[in-house]
Amino acid sequence: MIYKFGFGFNTETRNMSKCKVSAYNYVAEPFHVDFCGRLFMGVLGNHLLNSAGFHATERGFGIARLNESNYTWVLSRLAIEMEEMPREYESFTVETWIENVYRLFTDRNFAITGKDGKIYGYARSIWAMINLDTRKPADLLTLHGGTIVDYIESEKPCPISKPGRIKVNEKQPCRTIDVQYSDIDINGHVNSIKYIEHIMDLFPKDWYAVKTVRRFEVAYVAESYSGDRLSFFKEQVGDEEYDIEVRKNVAEGQSVGEVVCRGKIIFRNK
Amino acid sequence: MIYKFGFGFNTETRNMSKCKVSAYNYVAEPFHVDFCGRLFMGVLGNHLLNSAGFHATERGFGIARLNESNYTWVLSRLAIEMEEMPREYESFTVETWIENVYRLFTDRNFAITGKDGKIYGYARSIWAMINLDTRKPADLLTLHGGTIVDYIESEKPCPISKPGRIKVNEKQPCRTIDVQYSDIDINGHVNSIKYIEHIMDLFPKDWYAVKTVRRFEVAYVAESYSGDRLSFFKEQVGDEEYDIEVRKNVAEGQSVGEVVCRGKIIFRNK
Repeated sequence: MIYKFGFGFNTETRNMSKCKVSAYNYVAEPFHVDFCGRLFMGVLGNHLLNSAGFHATERGFGIARLNESNYTWVLSRLAIEMEEMPREYESFTVETWIENVYRLFTDRNFAITGKDGKIYGYARSIWAMINLDTRKPADLLTLHGGTIVDYIESEKPCPISKPGRIKVNEKQPCRTIDVQYSDIDINGHVNSIKYIEHIMDLFPKDWYAVKTVRRFEVAYVAESYSGDRLSFFKEQVGDEEYDIEVRKNVAEGQSVGEVVCRGKIIFRNK
Repeated sequence: MIYKFGFGFNTETRNMSKCKVSAYNYVAEPFHVDFCGRLFMGVLGNHLLNSAGFHATERGFGIARLNESNYTWVLSRLAIEMEEMPREYESFTVETWIENVYRLFTDRNFAITGKDGKIYGYARSIWAMINLDTRKPADLLTLHGGTIVDYIESEKPCPISKPGRIKVNEKQPCRTIDVQYSDIDINGHVNSIKYIEHIMDLFPKDWYAVKTVRRFEVAYVAESYSGDRLSFFKEQVGDEEYDIEVRKNVAEGQSVGEVVCRGKIIFRNK
């Protein structure tokens, strides 16, 4: 799930030296809401990743800069917890900041807010950086002379738990799909957002009529490509909690295959 | 394909009385481009329909106003012809205007342009208005005292041909899919954009490595819903030209089913 930072509507270089948190505004578009009129989880994920890209670019560690030295960001995990999803036509704001930087990973958090201080929810993400030649992880603490640590904002609250362990023993796939043209991103991989959509589609419309997603988690493990067949294994692990594993090219009647992605959904009644 | 006008980032009411053409700016986001780095056709379609919504709302015939009298717009046909698709991170502008208003239909055109007068392409669309109670078409010439005709712009060129006839005799579906949660919009129907994506997915990634879409056409005929199974019938009708028909709930081994949507794609070599 390589995600290219560097995307920005704002082309002017702003002085962000004192500013650790940035905020970006979105509107829930008509074709981006589900039958209940609430923003799709995949669309929210796209806005979070775009916001991450804006934030990084404005501070000089976006992909454009990184690519000069042949590095790129890779999204490893994403956890989203929502009180409520924005409704059709509602404006909302994504705030994002870096909570921590380690040698091989960085924690980036998000708050999704609305008018009059309304809190829609929060999200946490974990990123690594890789060298595009060697595909090996890079040392974040030495990036740009270690300047990334100047942007650490450890005080701002993100009151949701970190991504946890997801384990699926289920042997019978609940859905199998062939990777399509529209699944593939510019890197030739199934894109991070499409996995979210496919995981959400493991539950029927009637389910979403009475349930809403309280927490959604995804861990990206390996890439899948055009020509791959993805099998989805789903296991109920709690009262309202489901773990999902996506394996590729599982032989007919078998359950073994390379894991490309894992997910967890915790629902609540509406 | 009911499309709710009324969506707008711009909440101030502007005086549009003398302005017949409006322009809206977009950027090709990372997850909105294909493996070649070019905007997905479905994403472009979404931007066109959003632009149509902005334009109508700013002139007082958006859905919010219409719903007071219980009417809504219905997209009937859309034809898009592209010289080139915007690349990842490229900014582009969608201009839209009304070319004609008839009693039961209106023709709305689009130009997709870039920096320095670059022309990406053009599009044409045909819309009707229905009464939400009776589902019967409304008379556009009497809407709001006939004010819609004040916005007709018949001089601005849209140098692509009007949507034409699409006819498919093929008896063997090339793909069959069950409608998923993420296909369904706020009206409970498979959304207009998802049909475009599914039609584009009838051609493999390798095809798009060497071909690009010169013209894409879609005609919306009937609604499909959660629980429906959609069968796609594809027929080559010219050197680089394919007609597609989407029928719902076709019995196994049969080819007969209610037509929900038709499409045409004309390719060219890259």
